[in-house]
Amino acid sequence: MTASTVTLERESLLTRYRRVRDLTETLSEPLSHEDQQAQSMPDVSPTKWHRAHTTWFFETFILTPELPGYRVVDERYAYLFNSYYEAVGDRHPRAERGLITRPTFEQITRYRAAVDDAMIRLIAESDHDLLARASARIELGLHHEQQHQELMLMDIKHVLARGSFDSAYRHGRTGGTANGASSRAPGARPLSWTTFDGGLCDIGTDEATPESFAFDNESPAHTVLLAPFALADRLVTVGEWKAFIADGGYQRAELWLSDGWATVQREGWDAPLYWQTEGDDVSVLTLDGRRPLHDAEPVVHVSHYEADAYAHWAGARLPTEFEWEHAAGVAGASPDDANVLPDRLADAALHPRAASGSGLQQMFGDVWEWTASAYLPYPRFRIADGAIGEYNGKFMSNQMVLRGGACVTPTGHLRATYRNFFYPHQRWMFSGVRLGRDV
Amino acid sequence: MTASTVTLERESLLTRYRRVRDLTETLSEPLSHEDQQAQSMPDVSPTKWHRAHTTWFFETFILTPELPGYRVVDERYAYLFNSYYEAVGDRHPRAERGLITRPTFEQITRYRAAVDDAMIRLIAESDHDLLARASARIELGLHHEQQHQELMLMDIKHVLARGSFDSAYRHGRTGGTANGASSRAPGARPLSWTTFDGGLCDIGTDEATPESFAFDNESPAHTVLLAPFALADRLVTVGEWKAFIADGGYQRAELWLSDGWATVQREGWDAPLYWQTEGDDVSVLTLDGRRPLHDAEPVVHVSHYEADAYAHWAGARLPTEFEWEHAAGVAGASPDDANVLPDRLADAALHPRAASGSGLQQMFGDVWEWTASAYLPYPRFRIADGAIGEYNGKFMSNQMVLRGGACVTPTGHLRATYRNFFYPHQRWMFSGVRLGRDV
Amino acid sequence: MTASTVTLERESLLTRYRRVRDLTETLSEPLSHEDQQAQSMPDVSPTKWHRAHTTWFFETFILTPELPGYRVVDERYAYLFNSYYEAVGDRHPRAERGLITRPTFEQITRYRAAVDDAMIRLIAESDHDLLARASARIELGLHHEQQHQELMLMDIKHVLARGSFDSAYRHGRTGGTANGASSRAPGARPLSWTTFDGGLCDIGTDEATPESFAFDNESPAHTVLLAPFALADRLVTVGEWKAFIADGGYQRAELWLSDGWATVQREGWDAPLYWQTEGDDVSVLTLDGRRPLHDAEPVVHVSHYEADAYAHWAGARLPTEFEWEHAAGVAGASPDDANVLPDRLADAALHPRAASGSGLQQMFGDVWEWTASAYLPYPRFRIADGAIGEYNGKFMSNQMVLRGGACVTPTGHLRATYRNFFYPHQRWMFSGVRLGRDV
Amino acid sequence: MTASTVTLERESLLTRYRRVRDLTETLSEPLSHEDQQAQSMPDVSPTKWHRAHTTWFFETFILTPELPGYRVVDERYAYLFNSYYEAVGDRHPRAERGLITRPTFEQITRYRAAVDDAMIRLIAESDHDLLARASARIELGLHHEQQHQELMLMDIKHVLARGSFDSAYRHGRTGGTANGASSRAPGARPLSWTTFDGGLCDIGTDEATPESFAFDNESPAHTVLLAPFALADRLVTVGEWKAFIADGGYQRAELWLSDGWATVQREGWDAPLYWQTEGDDVSVLTLDGRRPLHDAEPVVHVSHYEADAYAHWAGARLPTEFEWEHAAGVAGASPDDANVLPDRLADAALHPRAASGSGLQQMFGDVWEWTASAYLPYPRFRIADGAIGEYNGKFMSNQMVLRGGACVTPTGHLRATYRNFFYPHQRWMFSGVRLGRDV
Repeated sequence: MTASTVTLERESLLTRYRRVRDLTETLSEPLSHEDQQAQSMPDVSPTKWHRAHTTWFFETFILTPELPGYRVVDERYAYLFNSYYEAVGDRHPRAERGLITRPTFEQITRYRAAVDDAMIRLIAESDHDLLARASARIELGLHHEQQHQELMLMDIKHVLARGSFDSAYRHGRTGGTANGASSRAPGARPLSWTTFDGGLCDIGTDEATPESFAFDNESPAHTVLLAPFALADRLVTVGEWKAFIADGGYQRAELWLSDGWATVQREGWDAPLYWQTEGDDVSVLTLDGRRPLHDAEPVVHVSHYEADAYAHWAGARLPTEFEWEHAAGVAGASPDDANVLPDRLADAALHPRAASGSGLQQMFGDVWEWTASAYLPYPRFRIADGAIGEYNGKFMSNQMVLRGGACVTPTGHLRATYRNFFYPHQRWMFSGVRLGRDV
Repeated sequence: MTASTVTLERESLLTRYRRVRDLTETLSEPLSHEDQQAQSMPDVSPTKWHRAHTTWFFETFILTPELPGYRVVDERYAYLFNSYYEAVGDRHPRAERGLITRPTFEQITRYRAAVDDAMIRLIAESDHDLLARASARIELGLHHEQQHQELMLMDIKHVLARGSFDSAYRHGRTGGTANGASSRAPGARPLSWTTFDGGLCDIGTDEATPESFAFDNESPAHTVLLAPFALADRLVTVGEWKAFIADGGYQRAELWLSDGWATVQREGWDAPLYWQTEGDDVSVLTLDGRRPLHDAEPVVHVSHYEADAYAHWAGARLPTEFEWEHAAGVAGASPDDANVLPDRLADAALHPRAASGSGLQQMFGDVWEWTASAYLPYPRFRIADGAIGEYNGKFMSNQMVLRGGACVTPTGHLRATYRNFFYPHQRWMFSGVRLGRDV
Repeated sequence: MTASTVTLERESLLTRYRRVRDLTETLSEPLSHEDQQAQSMPDVSPTKWHRAHTTWFFETFILTPELPGYRVVDERYAYLFNSYYEAVGDRHPRAERGLITRPTFEQITRYRAAVDDAMIRLIAESDHDLLARASARIELGLHHEQQHQELMLMDIKHVLARGSFDSAYRHGRTGGTANGASSRAPGARPLSWTTFDGGLCDIGTDEATPESFAFDNESPAHTVLLAPFALADRLVTVGEWKAFIADGGYQRAELWLSDGWATVQREGWDAPLYWQTEGDDVSVLTLDGRRPLHDAEPVVHVSHYEADAYAHWAGARLPTEFEWEHAAGVAGASPDDANVLPDRLADAALHPRAASGSGLQQMFGDVWEWTASAYLPYPRFRIADGAIGEYNGKFMSNQMVLRGGACVTPTGHLRATYRNFFYPHQRWMFSGVRLGRDV
Repeated sequence: MTASTVTLERESLLTRYRRVRDLTETLSEPLSHEDQQAQSMPDVSPTKWHRAHTTWFFETFILTPELPGYRVVDERYAYLFNSYYEAVGDRHPRAERGLITRPTFEQITRYRAAVDDAMIRLIAESDHDLLARASARIELGLHHEQQHQELMLMDIKHVLARGSFDSAYRHGRTGGTANGASSRAPGARPLSWTTFDGGLCDIGTDEATPESFAFDNESPAHTVLLAPFALADRLVTVGEWKAFIADGGYQRAELWLSDGWATVQREGWDAPLYWQTEGDDVSVLTLDGRRPLHDAEPVVHVSHYEADAYAHWAGARLPTEFEWEHAAGVAGASPDDANVLPDRLADAALHPRAASGSGLQQMFGDVWEWTASAYLPYPRFRIADGAIGEYNGKFMSNQMVLRGGACVTPTGHLRATYRNFFYPHQRWMFSGVRLGRDV
């Protein structure tokens, strides 16, 4: 590698580092110190905690081991801002992150600045070997921070919804005006099916390269055998979901998985999260505030149980994660131009948009699509050594895979092999449904 | 079909009906009315309830729809003894089955006799068309009752363990003397690996026939692609598990799935269920009472979380359910001569036995083997219409597949395609571990 | 004391011992082994457990310390049948008494017989000194067993109510036919008030004597200062309670104590325990089965919270325990001829009866009357040394006093100074309401 | 009443209004916005909530009904800042006050200012009749705010203790330097007993007057009969409590009330709240931070269960609330010069001080003293009509009375008849112990 290649790489990494780190701060700007403090359920973390935890990640896994003479900003942060790395030591209880009033917002801002200074120095000035060694970890840290950017938006939506006073994350827009004219049309275009032959199909990706990052759970690349199948060419819409509700969808046990039905009964669910019915009017909470629902827009904030029951009711099923990944490849779907989170908040839709064209649409962005696949290791998957090995592997139990990304997933973070995962009862993330069926 | 063939079929069905129904009563004989009444946790059902529920199954799904003029024994039984069939109506709460003191033991005995009389009349006297129509359901009812025979033994073991006074189900034997000399040997023979090439492999079975019953979850037959793999030629033993414990197995977070580690912490687990340590002595509860543990015998009553952590510690993994099924077929493993539950209680081991020979052993009987596979529908699986459709499909969420059967599974109930399933935290069933690995 | 006096005493004690112990067995006779096994909530104990625990009391506190050479029937019983005596050692968890399937009914019957033999020998043959020393403890044991006789009836009513199949304790009677014509009359006679001057009043009783037993919590005798007050001359009736319900009694927060209102909301209470409304018909569960409610009968199975809210609604209040005791004395009320539990089950009403005469009625028997007094020690109360000291004193927290006894309290067990106590949310005992007011 | 008297009254009320309202803001000054947002358990409220709720009280009960043309600052505040007044409408759930991130700190500051403006106008300008009518309510509002000032300090101490990073409320002092030299002495002076004859004693006070405010639960004045008794002349100290611990106080069931023992077991208590033991060093959290414990200082943050067990262990008992009130009167104890909360935070000790003199000391201030009295209405107590009637009466269930006030109770808020009350398991308030005994 020539010196000038290295220089280019340094600059590219610096640019990328600054861009990702800046977006985190941009996302926290509309929020008061109080907003950034609250935790509405154990699954949710405060905005301030996200800002600190992502910083702790760089400090712990890069600066401390790699930057000679680096001194941690505050030794107590390790206890407060470790999320789940058992190998790194004890942690503040997850359900009590809302009680970490100290350090304050300003202290965390200073923490971010100090770590950024050191990171930028490391990227700009470290010798070639160190940089080569650290760059994969830095890349991981940036993708990690992008995951938390999405979590910040999911989480603050949940917090503000519970506060019940002013639940808008962003002011100055009517929620959903960004969605385009089609979302206010009375209904969406009719659903069509796209057919795939299946057969022996390539799934996953091997070791990530500097050019194309991937998480460990996307590897190893391997082959699966698929029967012929079809995918719906767009997401399930609000109008369709209303028909499901009107047909007793939430009252008919025969449509549901047993654990799903128990959840519906226990939680009293009768609609997706954030819907509210007053008389004939149904409204939905968006990050821009509460507004009327549009029949053409995709349904969002549904659990796997609801997705599965809806598919059952519709005479279809959920696609497997392999069907989804294969179809995305065959159809040439790409995250570019998808409705995802751009670097400028003002340009962000922050809500799924109605499908407007034809062909296999909305594969990336808009909403995470529930699949019929349990989150399990790929054949010959190996958990990495040390704390970084805890990144994905230990969660491969009881969760279901979602694919494609959502309107709150940062741009540049998605790819066809990306595997997201949540428990089947969860629905505070931006999750929706695409139908599949046998051919 | 000739008249004599029909007669033969009738007699064969009658014999089988009587044999299965008699075994249920045989299994309840060692128990007092009080033993048959108690429920030690929501997962467990009282013996009396099992005896009644299996009878209600025949009454509801065969006698009522098929036998002209049949009147149910007691209309209130439908509420008390429906297990989970939403389509059949409301039910007594599962967690309160131990409060059904009425009907009494004797009333349930009369209930069984009345239903048996009607069933035997139906089998012996019904016209050819009715019998042809009913026989698949009767077969399902018998396999259903066999499943509950195994549950009766698992459940009463749990009940008696909690009562803490006399916890033996069967008296007159030292627990495990039936296990043969090898189980008291200081250790088991060394573990070997049997290798399989994988490739495109046939899995599952199509619609059950009168000659070869299968549950709906075993269909459709289909092909999967397997990479080369190896299976351990015997089950994990007590001696090996002790080494896992001695090496801090229950204290090292890095060995565990995240949900598994949370369970270990919450429940305070430090050994398999029913083990008890006093000083240097480790004992185990068997259905014959408490006795010392033998290093050579298979470990039993472990959860999926423990099985997975053990495999991780051992540098191996759990096999998938497809690997297991393929290996059983290739190796010609058969449930005949396995350590399962015979018709005569006196002949039953009621506890797993040590492996004694060589080659791929203990595939059937002894203990249910945890796999790495989530319990999901096979491709193109369809849920049957009506209440019978609730039999298996609605449980395809959050559970893991186990294969092979156990020492308490009734003889004649097992086959290579059989899929059992439990939640990963459960361990009151006779569950154990066979290791797998990549080749 | 002369020899013949001693003989008379022995005979009297023997007669009394046999009478009390026999009644326990009489009360268990209508119940199957299964009925005697079940436990419907932690507060409830199985009938079999009551039969064993009362026996363990005599064995532990009299036979073991006093009868030379006595060997306990089974050493494991101490763990199973100790109710709460910390000083006597570890105990089986209270919430799991329903899991003690062993020892069986028959073993407990033999346990009772063996202890009775030894007790009768001790009473009949011990020397004068031993008898003198033991007789106070024997008397305590008999009153203790009488308390458990009442608990047996409360508890089995709760068990059978949850089983939902046949909820009658006693068959062959229509519930409440024993209540006399008046209970089926459309309403009760109008309520009158009896006025008392108050002043310095004597309360409680000093050390119990052989002739007149009292529990430690009734002592020391002392004087309290009472303002003038009035008591209702009969219990609150079903007809009156229906008016409270019809007036929104269970929906109006302003009538309730804060903790009471939280309980109503959490439990969904809208009527006393064991009431059931279908259309216009309101029925009640009695120990003789379910039957229509009569307006004239006293309301029973209400909590302190409900009693207090009712009194508030009625413009009255609950009397203090001192007002009740003083009034009982002034009015010459006596437990004789009250509706309590006689020795013969056939003679027992087992349900409160309507008031039929005039004057201050129903002070004893029928229902335990909630008072406005917290259960606290009397001035200069001292807890006795040793395990017996745990009898009453340690419960003097968070509970409220009830006075007068109920239709299920054994005859001979009541007196004006008797203090019963329950938590304010409990209502499975035979509790009701008498109003008081200031004058 | 002359015009000048009215003017004097107005000015006195204005002064007092400003003084009380200002102290609330003074108390919140050391806290960040985040500190003021967090809620560490349902019993605790965020500082911001206290600041808003006390303001809502004046707006709802005085400005809205009395000030013509007054418009509430924000109609949504009624839902958010109503604490428990059922008559005033629905409320935000108590356990979720920490989720009210909006309105923000600044909005609440403006809310306080707007209400203060209107209140000052009302006091300064309203006609004589209105002022006469409103002044009792204003007085109630001020005493209500003083109660919340104490709660603010208790609550923030609990919040900061859970955050585990920097748990000091006030910086710049070593916790307890204000306590005087005696608190660092190795032990306290020996305990002496002060004897009282008892007899017929006056308790409580009648309707509050403008000159001498009292809560409704202190009335009516009435007479009780007391036996002779003695009170300890000082509070129980840390040194004495250490002896209790060293003697197995938290391990000996026989010392405890039954509910108390269950609480100790469930919570794992082995010392007062906020104590921390590392090796031989025992430290305590104060509002000035963590510091070593001094043997001479009073023990604080103990539950009623612990207070009762300690008294039992010490061969004494807790005094009744009547004994305490009578003794305070006879001994001429006064809240003046007691260790309470002054208007200037810099002058506040914020922690109990060691007893320094002789005679009956520390009756007021330092710590709230648990009594043996359940919190019940005085004879002929009447609950006031309307929402104000909910102030005290509805809590008269399951709680125990504490007397005397604490180092965090605002000056001017205490008197001998004052009745505070908490549940017996609570200990986050500044509660301690004075012994009593029979004579």
